[in-house]
Amino acid sequence: MSIVVTNIRRADPAVIEALGKAGVATVHEAQGRTGCLASHMRPIYPGAQIAGSAVTISAPPGDNWMVHVAIEQLRDGDVLVLAPTSPCDAGYFGDLLATSAMAHGCRGLVIDAGVRDVRDLTAMGFPVWSRAVSAQGTVKETLGSVNVPIVCAGQLVEAGDVLVADDDGVVVARRDDAEAVAAAAQKRLEAEEAKRRRLAAGELGLDIYDMRPRLAAKGLKYV
Amino acid sequence: MSIVVTNIRRADPAVIEALGKAGVATVHEAQGRTGCLASHMRPIYPGAQIAGSAVTISAPPGDNWMVHVAIEQLRDGDVLVLAPTSPCDAGYFGDLLATSAMAHGCRGLVIDAGVRDVRDLTAMGFPVWSRAVSAQGTVKETLGSVNVPIVCAGQLVEAGDVLVADDDGVVVARRDDAEAVAAAAQKRLEAEEAKRRRLAAGELGLDIYDMRPRLAAKGLKYV
Amino acid sequence: MSIVVTNIRRADPAVIEALGKAGVATVHEAQGRTGCLASHMRPIYPGAQIAGSAVTISAPPGDNWMVHVAIEQLRDGDVLVLAPTSPCDAGYFGDLLATSAMAHGCRGLVIDAGVRDVRDLTAMGFPVWSRAVSAQGTVKETLGSVNVPIVCAGQLVEAGDVLVADDDGVVVARRDDAEAVAAAAQKRLEAEEAKRRRLAAGELGLDIYDMRPRLAAKGLKYV
Amino acid sequence: MSIVVTNIRRADPAVIEALGKAGVATVHEAQGRTGCLASHMRPIYPGAQIAGSAVTISAPPGDNWMVHVAIEQLRDGDVLVLAPTSPCDAGYFGDLLATSAMAHGCRGLVIDAGVRDVRDLTAMGFPVWSRAVSAQGTVKETLGSVNVPIVCAGQLVEAGDVLVADDDGVVVARRDDAEAVAAAAQKRLEAEEAKRRRLAAGELGLDIYDMRPRLAAKGLKYV
Amino acid sequence: MSIVVTNIRRADPAVIEALGKAGVATVHEAQGRTGCLASHMRPIYPGAQIAGSAVTISAPPGDNWMVHVAIEQLRDGDVLVLAPTSPCDAGYFGDLLATSAMAHGCRGLVIDAGVRDVRDLTAMGFPVWSRAVSAQGTVKETLGSVNVPIVCAGQLVEAGDVLVADDDGVVVARRDDAEAVAAAAQKRLEAEEAKRRRLAAGELGLDIYDMRPRLAAKGLKYV
Amino acid sequence: MSIVVTNIRRADPAVIEALGKAGVATVHEAQGRTGCLASHMRPIYPGAQIAGSAVTISAPPGDNWMVHVAIEQLRDGDVLVLAPTSPCDAGYFGDLLATSAMAHGCRGLVIDAGVRDVRDLTAMGFPVWSRAVSAQGTVKETLGSVNVPIVCAGQLVEAGDVLVADDDGVVVARRDDAEAVAAAAQKRLEAEEAKRRRLAAGELGLDIYDMRPRLAAKGLKYV
Repeated sequence: MSIVVTNIRRADPAVIEALGKAGVATVHEAQGRTGCLASHMRPIYPGAQIAGSAVTISAPPGDNWMVHVAIEQLRDGDVLVLAPTSPCDAGYFGDLLATSAMAHGCRGLVIDAGVRDVRDLTAMGFPVWSRAVSAQGTVKETLGSVNVPIVCAGQLVEAGDVLVADDDGVVVARRDDAEAVAAAAQKRLEAEEAKRRRLAAGELGLDIYDMRPRLAAKGLKYV
Repeated sequence: MSIVVTNIRRADPAVIEALGKAGVATVHEAQGRTGCLASHMRPIYPGAQIAGSAVTISAPPGDNWMVHVAIEQLRDGDVLVLAPTSPCDAGYFGDLLATSAMAHGCRGLVIDAGVRDVRDLTAMGFPVWSRAVSAQGTVKETLGSVNVPIVCAGQLVEAGDVLVADDDGVVVARRDDAEAVAAAAQKRLEAEEAKRRRLAAGELGLDIYDMRPRLAAKGLKYV
Repeated sequence: MSIVVTNIRRADPAVIEALGKAGVATVHEAQGRTGCLASHMRPIYPGAQIAGSAVTISAPPGDNWMVHVAIEQLRDGDVLVLAPTSPCDAGYFGDLLATSAMAHGCRGLVIDAGVRDVRDLTAMGFPVWSRAVSAQGTVKETLGSVNVPIVCAGQLVEAGDVLVADDDGVVVARRDDAEAVAAAAQKRLEAEEAKRRRLAAGELGLDIYDMRPRLAAKGLKYV
Repeated sequence: MSIVVTNIRRADPAVIEALGKAGVATVHEAQGRTGCLASHMRPIYPGAQIAGSAVTISAPPGDNWMVHVAIEQLRDGDVLVLAPTSPCDAGYFGDLLATSAMAHGCRGLVIDAGVRDVRDLTAMGFPVWSRAVSAQGTVKETLGSVNVPIVCAGQLVEAGDVLVADDDGVVVARRDDAEAVAAAAQKRLEAEEAKRRRLAAGELGLDIYDMRPRLAAKGLKYV
Repeated sequence: MSIVVTNIRRADPAVIEALGKAGVATVHEAQGRTGCLASHMRPIYPGAQIAGSAVTISAPPGDNWMVHVAIEQLRDGDVLVLAPTSPCDAGYFGDLLATSAMAHGCRGLVIDAGVRDVRDLTAMGFPVWSRAVSAQGTVKETLGSVNVPIVCAGQLVEAGDVLVADDDGVVVARRDDAEAVAAAAQKRLEAEEAKRRRLAAGELGLDIYDMRPRLAAKGLKYV
Repeated sequence: MSIVVTNIRRADPAVIEALGKAGVATVHEAQGRTGCLASHMRPIYPGAQIAGSAVTISAPPGDNWMVHVAIEQLRDGDVLVLAPTSPCDAGYFGDLLATSAMAHGCRGLVIDAGVRDVRDLTAMGFPVWSRAVSAQGTVKETLGSVNVPIVCAGQLVEAGDVLVADDDGVVVARRDDAEAVAAAAQKRLEAEEAKRRRLAAGELGLDIYDMRPRLAAKGLKYV
């Protein structure tokens, strides 16, 4: 039952780069308000903004053996995504694993569990989005799987899907939708720019979006 | 049932300014240890310290339509305060709404739900105290109310009440008590200064506050 | 039942210093993956790394009287460690108490409850690891005890034990084990350095730790 | 600051009885989907369904002194409602206090904290809705207030408001709205009966409520 | 983006029945320790044990419109499975919807949100596994989807998958694996029976499973 | 580091029986309001009331191997007490282990993690107090220890300590204090009986305990 899928398809690097520039909130909106991981997934330091192809890890609680297995599967531009098979906040990952992952092209880690050595990771510029920071160590006794579909923080993630992460959290875009989502995100960014200028000038969303008639029809009263 | 109260009374701007300078902990103590919002209300970036008059929003879960309605009610120096009608951590508010709110004089947002675009909000200097950071989008389908009394993070907030927020969280002062609270806060700050000097010099609180007899009377034993 | 133990034994200052340099994750590993306080114990600002002898406080919920009592028991290099007798997130500790504690040699506070005045504490360089930040005030009505064994955030802490705290959280080392743990930590740090270089050069943990045969024996399949 | 309001107005007993028969969900809907206390407020045993006038208690964390004070204020048909001034799950209330409260006409307790002796309370038929069951004891050292407005589990409750509680949780109806709410609840119950029969016969809500055109207009597609 | 898939494939009724008899823990083990929904999914009353084909619902927070749409898609022996698009504990479902669902053959509801009218549902014998019990009402304003893949309480559920639920919680079996899982579950039940007799007679698991050599090899010491 | 302590001392069976009859709240009060495990420890069925000597288990997250080891250490009248080394809600224990434990005299299980097969356990009359009910299975790969001191749900438990558990939760009494606590509990029960009669007759606690002067002295005002 424990497998490593070695040949995964990834999205076009230019598409991944575009999604990363768009950022989490825009990608989420561009794909129809879907794909956000749960809000408990927080960055260990502010300011990182990445996108990459998911190398997924399904790991037992308190056992980080499969991280070593997954690192061999990394290609340049990938992101490690780990979900424990039952809730766990132990520290699966620290500076040694980050050193190894970076040497294999990894852009960051998304983990619905704990991470440690966060000061070192910050100094190394290796970003992590996690449920917890915890020094609690793990063992290497029980197998899991790599590059199988997982549910991480409430979202299905398949190997090769595109993970986008920034200070707002993490969103996943299906690999096969990535190009269309990137295009929709770009349009959305352009449309926002015009709105931002009007709003900054003091125009109200009530007027820009013509909300007043619909609010009145729904029964809103001013008193 | 969905209303917007358009004419709210606010506290004296000088009083609001004094409360803002005193900060959350001092205002809370000055009004008899009342008014603190729940400790899950955290700032999106450190260092902001504000006070302002509450423009309140009662909004359905996952629906930010009323934020647009509320922005029209803002006056210079106000603070938006939003409570969802049932628990929700979606991202009701981002950089476009902040742009609009700032253009109408808003000093910040207090929201018992989620906020997004936090990197942009930080760059804009628009402070937010929230339950969560979340890119999860919202809809504009169901009415709520503006400037009605709400319960936000465990505290009653009425339109025109003074919200004070800093790195310690958020406290609310009733509009009609604001002046007295500001005066009490000022006295407290002055009294603290003398104590701080004595404590820094190594005097013990046990002696400064004459606690030893009462501790002994209660039965404290040194062994 | 309320007592203050006045004569506590402490570990050797050189050992404490060595543990502080090793940091939380290394100390935790060096003593057999034990001693981590729960991951909800977070620092109020990043970058602090301390070690010190525990002066323990058992305090009722919402009552910080015993903190004053404990401060008299501090010696240079100590750390205050407070556990409430039932769960509480009120702000037991602020800048005045920190001023007093610093004047008596205190290196920081570990508290399974709330702390306030965090901006001031940050400016003073007084580090705190806590369950919450909260301005909610406390009273001085009910006794507790000082320097008795407590359970703080899931770990037993006895007076004189060594607390180590950094961005990864907090770990406790038994006073009588501290010297052996420090030695084990030092060995571990040296061993890690060699591994770090190999991993940075692209060698895989799978090979460095010779994991492949054992993974195969357990049944891992590559597909 | 610590007061006991001794003369509170209550709603008409017939109205209270009607609200109790309607139950929590119906009362909540009848007053425009407002008033539900947070869903962590659970009954200690199934099957109780009560309504009564609120005698409110604001109490410090871990201190149940004010419960004794409140019991003197009870009149036949009242419900005790307690909110701690900061989050606390200690057991404020047990079988002795229940014996006393019942002797003074109390119908039950709503407490955003802990309760104990739940087996005895069950045997006595004294219902409680609480955040927790906990044997953790409390002290009698610090004042609070009785019959002041409180926020309990996210809802404002004023003395004399009507609390309705059953297996679905707890809802509060403003005293001055109680009669109108009871009338609206009665209408709602009658309307539901007809719908229930049609639904039981297999008719679809889609047809009974004529939802299909609006679903289609919003864009729902069947594939 | 809002769709209803009308033609879903279901597992063989005899297989579903066998999975229901095996129960949650056995099914979970039989499919390699996978498929358990999160442990916050609790039954509203003890003793129910069901299995059925999933009719899935993706619904916005606080909006139960899609439940009406889903009921039309029910066939005899189905189970409704609802996941909100962001965390929500409002009461999406009550006795009227249960009446309707039962009239269309529904065996129960699995909902990662709230449910209400639990006393009525208990009397009707309509079992529900939910995150919360809450009377908080919902609206019918925003579309969702029916019979699309959802993540419910941490597990991927696709329309037609088999949900098994009892007092231990909920597990999902992939439709195409259901037959093999049922066979494995049956074997497991038979094997357990022999072990149960030996354990009841006082034999130790240490001996039955021959654990002593492996424990010794790992280093376990008796002192 | 993984050990099994085979020779533990237990309290006098008559004392244990007396503590069990007194129940959790009374024992907690009789030992100075100490020893309650956290309130998330709930019974899987109502009505059980037990006391027994602790056989303690320290187990890795998601690994129940040590339960088998511990069962061999059971003597008639013991209670198993398990704490995971990092937070975990997986189902460590089910009906087979309960069958084995009962065959060796075990009175129940206290576990700060999950339990499964709760319907069978209820039918067998094997009571469990746990953090969660969960069918999630565990492995047998990593050692832990038996009969070492553990922290379970916030309380230190040593092998041979007396665990008392009922519908109010769980309390631990130190083995060497057990006799004195049982005596104090007995006195408390007798004193309560007289108070109960007076309270039932309508006398107020305010008068029975002579609280009025102290309330007035603290400043309580009736308005």
